[in-house]
Amino acid sequence: MMKDIFKLALPVILCVFATACSNNKNQKEMNSQKSGLTEIFPKGEKGSGETFTGNAYHIGLVDADSILTTVVGNVYFEPGARSNWHSHPAGQILIITDGVGYHQIEGKPVEIIKKGSVVKCPPNVRHWHGASAEVGLQQLFIVPNIEKGIVNWNEAVSDQQYKGTR
Amino acid sequence: MMKDIFKLALPVILCVFATACSNNKNQKEMNSQKSGLTEIFPKGEKGSGETFTGNAYHIGLVDADSILTTVVGNVYFEPGARSNWHSHPAGQILIITDGVGYHQIEGKPVEIIKKGSVVKCPPNVRHWHGASAEVGLQQLFIVPNIEKGIVNWNEAVSDQQYKGTR
Repeated sequence: MMKDIFKLALPVILCVFATACSNNKNQKEMNSQKSGLTEIFPKGEKGSGETFTGNAYHIGLVDADSILTTVVGNVYFEPGARSNWHSHPAGQILIITDGVGYHQIEGKPVEIIKKGSVVKCPPNVRHWHGASAEVGLQQLFIVPNIEKGIVNWNEAVSDQQYKGTR
Repeated sequence: MMKDIFKLALPVILCVFATACSNNKNQKEMNSQKSGLTEIFPKGEKGSGETFTGNAYHIGLVDADSILTTVVGNVYFEPGARSNWHSHPAGQILIITDGVGYHQIEGKPVEIIKKGSVVKCPPNVRHWHGASAEVGLQQLFIVPNIEKGIVNWNEAVSDQQYKGTR
C-alpha cells in the first residue's frame, strides 16, 4: 500500500516542482518586462544634480565635430527623473526608444512621450523632458547645427510643473 | 488493478502535458528572440528594388525642413537585405538599435554593426549598409545639413561585395 502511495505521489511531486520552476522563470521575465527598459546603449554617467532632478544617466554617441556638426547621445531617465529647463540655439530632436515620459515646451501643455515618439523642439525655445513617475524613459537626443551652440541650461523643473499642475 | 494504474497514470499524463505546454511557450519565446527584432517604430514602406536588395522597410521620422535641416528615419533590413551603394553630400550617422549587420565605406573592409553601434560616414563617400545573412538589422539614420543635399543613389551591392570577398 505504501509503495502504491509513493508511486502515485512521486509524479505529482515532480509535476509540482517542474511547474513551480517554470512559474518562477516566467515571473522573473514578467518583472523584467514590467520594470526594465530594453537597454540599447551603455548607461553612461549619472547626470549632475545641477541639470537633472532624480536619477538620469547619459552617454555621448556622436561628439561635436566640424564635419557632421551634429551631437547625438542617449539618456536613461529612471521613474520621476527629468532634465532642468533648457534650450538649444539650433533646436533639438528627441527619439524615444523605450518607456514612457513627458516633454514640455514652455507655455504649452505637458505632452506624453513613449517608445516610438519623435519630438522636434525649435531653436531657442525653453523645454524639459524626462520619465513618467511610474515608468522610466530611454531617449536619443540629436542636436543639429552645433556651430550655433549646443545647450543653455536653466532652473530645475518643480514638482508642480512636473505634475502639470501649473 | 486498472483503477490503480489510472491513479498512477493520471498525474504522469498531467505532468507531461504541463511540461509540454511550458516547453512550447519557452520555445516560442526563444524563436522570437532569435529571429525577431524589438520593433520601436512602425515598419513603414518596403524599399524599392531600385535602391535596395532584398526586403528592407523604411519610415521617415523627421522630414526635411529649413529649421532643423536634419532628416531622420528608421530602416528594418530583413536578413540578407542591404542598401545600394550611395553617398550623402553632408555625411550620415547610423544608430543601430537591434540586430546584426554590415557597413562598408568604399575601399575599406566590411565592418560588423550591431545593437548599440554608431557609424559616422563622411560627406561624399560611397557606402552601403544592411543586415547580416542570418539576423536582421534595425537602424536609425540621421542626415545632417540637408541644405547640401540628402542622398545620391548608385548601383546595387553584388553578392561578392556583400560577402566581403572582393
